[in-house]
Amino acid sequence: MYNKFKYRTYLLLNPAKGNEKWDKLVDYFLVTLISLNIVAVILETVDDVYNSYNLCFKVFEKFSVYIFTVEYLLRLWACTCETKYKHPTIGRLKWIFSFGALIDLLAFLPFYLPFTKVDLRVVRILRLFRFLRVFKLGRYLNATKLISNVFKSKKEELILCLVITLSLIILASSFMYFAENQAQPDKYSSIPATMWWCVTTLTTVGYGDVFPITVIGKILTAFIAILGIGMFALPAGILASGFSDEFRKRKNKEKHICPHCGKEINNERI
Amino acid sequence: MYNKFKYRTYLLLNPAKGNEKWDKLVDYFLVTLISLNIVAVILETVDDVYNSYNLCFKVFEKFSVYIFTVEYLLRLWACTCETKYKHPTIGRLKWIFSFGALIDLLAFLPFYLPFTKVDLRVVRILRLFRFLRVFKLGRYLNATKLISNVFKSKKEELILCLVITLSLIILASSFMYFAENQAQPDKYSSIPATMWWCVTTLTTVGYGDVFPITVIGKILTAFIAILGIGMFALPAGILASGFSDEFRKRKNKEKHICPHCGKEINNERI
Amino acid sequence: MYNKFKYRTYLLLNPAKGNEKWDKLVDYFLVTLISLNIVAVILETVDDVYNSYNLCFKVFEKFSVYIFTVEYLLRLWACTCETKYKHPTIGRLKWIFSFGALIDLLAFLPFYLPFTKVDLRVVRILRLFRFLRVFKLGRYLNATKLISNVFKSKKEELILCLVITLSLIILASSFMYFAENQAQPDKYSSIPATMWWCVTTLTTVGYGDVFPITVIGKILTAFIAILGIGMFALPAGILASGFSDEFRKRKNKEKHICPHCGKEINNERI
Amino acid sequence: MYNKFKYRTYLLLNPAKGNEKWDKLVDYFLVTLISLNIVAVILETVDDVYNSYNLCFKVFEKFSVYIFTVEYLLRLWACTCETKYKHPTIGRLKWIFSFGALIDLLAFLPFYLPFTKVDLRVVRILRLFRFLRVFKLGRYLNATKLISNVFKSKKEELILCLVITLSLIILASSFMYFAENQAQPDKYSSIPATMWWCVTTLTTVGYGDVFPITVIGKILTAFIAILGIGMFALPAGILASGFSDEFRKRKNKEKHICPHCGKEINNERI
Repeated sequence: MYNKFKYRTYLLLNPAKGNEKWDKLVDYFLVTLISLNIVAVILETVDDVYNSYNLCFKVFEKFSVYIFTVEYLLRLWACTCETKYKHPTIGRLKWIFSFGALIDLLAFLPFYLPFTKVDLRVVRILRLFRFLRVFKLGRYLNATKLISNVFKSKKEELILCLVITLSLIILASSFMYFAENQAQPDKYSSIPATMWWCVTTLTTVGYGDVFPITVIGKILTAFIAILGIGMFALPAGILASGFSDEFRKRKNKEKHICPHCGKEINNERI
Repeated sequence: MYNKFKYRTYLLLNPAKGNEKWDKLVDYFLVTLISLNIVAVILETVDDVYNSYNLCFKVFEKFSVYIFTVEYLLRLWACTCETKYKHPTIGRLKWIFSFGALIDLLAFLPFYLPFTKVDLRVVRILRLFRFLRVFKLGRYLNATKLISNVFKSKKEELILCLVITLSLIILASSFMYFAENQAQPDKYSSIPATMWWCVTTLTTVGYGDVFPITVIGKILTAFIAILGIGMFALPAGILASGFSDEFRKRKNKEKHICPHCGKEINNERI
Repeated sequence: MYNKFKYRTYLLLNPAKGNEKWDKLVDYFLVTLISLNIVAVILETVDDVYNSYNLCFKVFEKFSVYIFTVEYLLRLWACTCETKYKHPTIGRLKWIFSFGALIDLLAFLPFYLPFTKVDLRVVRILRLFRFLRVFKLGRYLNATKLISNVFKSKKEELILCLVITLSLIILASSFMYFAENQAQPDKYSSIPATMWWCVTTLTTVGYGDVFPITVIGKILTAFIAILGIGMFALPAGILASGFSDEFRKRKNKEKHICPHCGKEINNERI
Repeated sequence: MYNKFKYRTYLLLNPAKGNEKWDKLVDYFLVTLISLNIVAVILETVDDVYNSYNLCFKVFEKFSVYIFTVEYLLRLWACTCETKYKHPTIGRLKWIFSFGALIDLLAFLPFYLPFTKVDLRVVRILRLFRFLRVFKLGRYLNATKLISNVFKSKKEELILCLVITLSLIILASSFMYFAENQAQPDKYSSIPATMWWCVTTLTTVGYGDVFPITVIGKILTAFIAILGIGMFALPAGILASGFSDEFRKRKNKEKHICPHCGKEINNERI
């Protein structure tokens, strides 16, 4: 009886497993609550809104934190239903230190901290962790599989792209430092400072706070910027072929049967 | 006789259906008129042009509005030729509240409003709806099918891209708000204000009105901007594989023969 | 004898047709001369360089113009070797008004104009046409075929992209005009002026000379900029599938023969 | 015995050849040392860090230069193990003037120069060559093969892209020079100066230090910027099809059987 109730709770809080009407309802309620929390954190930083609806924010904060606490405790209790966390003590400890559970914990823990005598500013920064609730939404999304598959299958190439990019940034920054340091010692003050310029140029953001003024610097920048186009093209090309492969794989998995004779058709022929 | 005339009108105003010389002529006339209207609205906002050709604009406005009114009324009368809007009253009401018809109505309705005692400034903003005529041009374009097919088949992936982008914007903005708020309280005044910076950075627009000045902010921006390259690459990759698939499908429609029985296979099954 | 000499001249000046040593030499000489001319025009605009090497530029100008004049006259004389321009008078007139010949003519004609009493400033602008010599280089490039093929096969989709882009610019500009005109009447003074902002935003150039300051304007810009990413992705996707198709076509054209039995292998199976 | 020891040294310093535990350890040690050197050069340019840890940098510099010198001399001694550099004198001279060895030499040579009476500023610029150590990391990366293969197979198309880009820059710059020179003689002072603007626009960096203010200049810029999108799309499309081809090739290497005789076909022929 006790175990059955625990299993019911487990299904209720794990939307991917339970399929009944109540499971969906709890799921929708939690997703909505998380979304509203994100909106609240964002709006709280707007002074006008915060001053006008001070009380609303505090009440909503309290309400959602209590809900999240209850959800966390119920999950902690019911997690033993999963084979991975089967052991009543060690399994639960394992669960507590899993990535998802830690995020859940940090989502409401900062709320209880002001009761202790902690410096308020530290708490304010800790509240940032409330934003990790964004990741909770990820748990509810099933369709992420395709994109994550593509990233996994092209992982090596993308890492190589990143390494090439970083090397390019280091090289370009050091060259530019020697080219522009004399002319603009305040903006190209050091190689790390030049890297800031390099990143804004290679990604084509180009804020315009730092730009070369010497002839050599401008010629170097032209080369770097044109290389930047190539750098954009590389991950686009890799991911494009990745998506093509993934879709072809899925297509091949479907059985093809000739409607006339009923035999299966070898997919490689089509 | 009456019905035949109505059907003739229906064909005349629905270029996709009628194929006679007159149908094409009416079609070309309406497309030209719509295009000229768009040009007129654009040029009216240039003070020099408006002051010089004040009368021309007013005459052209009157002329085109009358034509559009007549076209609208004729369409309303003839729409019952379509099976969807067969019923003389309910069918016509349905037609009036269809998206295309509402746009058509809004295209000329604001013109008749100044006769009533409405505040002029409101009317000026209402005139903006005249721009919805741009959508009318879409009705005449047949080739949009391919691109819309690709978007439809990759809808889920593109929505996921958008969700990832939005999550990234929310996360990056909140982190940046805490990193830069102290140093630039006027520019990074709140998370929504920081989002403005985040959008201009992630899309690599980089106006340069807001940019980080703290070291932590610059490092965060570097990460966000490099992630922005990947974000560009994702939809490009998805759409590239989408176009490849769509072209392959069209090619496959040419013919397919089962290797077992030699009969042609209906392509839609493959 | 006369005809043989003319045909020899024709081959000499059409590098794609003649294959002898002298044909290549003349070809290389002309390409080098055209390239040097482009460099000269560019450097002439730099005041320091122009003042120092005034005479050099004038001598080189004279020399190259005489060469181009001789080349033009020889081509005019020899063009009748081509079946298209066979007729001695009409064929030559046809040749004169062909696109390539007009560019060639404009490449040296402005040089002879100062002898007549034309305003010098007009001549200076006419000198711009000397830059059309850049197109002459195109005649010597054979490898452009692949890229032009891809563009031809995807012409319709790319034009549709352009139409979508233009519609987006018109719509976005008119909305932004009404959103920002009140706040920044000098920068968003009219819809055409707003279009300038719209182009720099959608292409993610983002100079930073015009940017929205109202909340509505910023939200609109965020939408437009994110749509801009999609706009980048569309032509990239279309062209990627175009290149894949073109390479597949070329591959399929190669015969595949089994090295064991010598029979041809049906390409569609591989 | 002597030769065996030399061969052992050769294997030790060429990680791609040796597979023993010691070979890996030496490899990891050198990669770490090179990485730390790069970090040191970057941090040395930050005045605060340099002043605080002056001694550390000098000691680390000395240590790593001695290691690199020993490595270089050992390589020079052992390089004759390779068939390419077999001859004791000529082979070694060949090795010295190979690209990799020259980089290795320049990586530590500037350190010994201050002992001679050379101007210090020249030495500082020479220290830039220490950055060529970045290339040394490349030697240790095996996975670069795929990306370099794609670049090799699409070399012609990418070069053509570059030629198109350069032509576009030349043409656009000269047109813009004539359009904007009168209005902004300080920013669009010459065609090479206009090229700087053109590169920042076409690559969509858009610093905002130079931008057109005349109507003709703005219209030209709009065309150039929209062409810039196409320019971005071209290399992305080419590389996307390149990656697809490369992955298909690898897949095809798995096996291929002739449908006529049933024997396996050597893949390189297909």
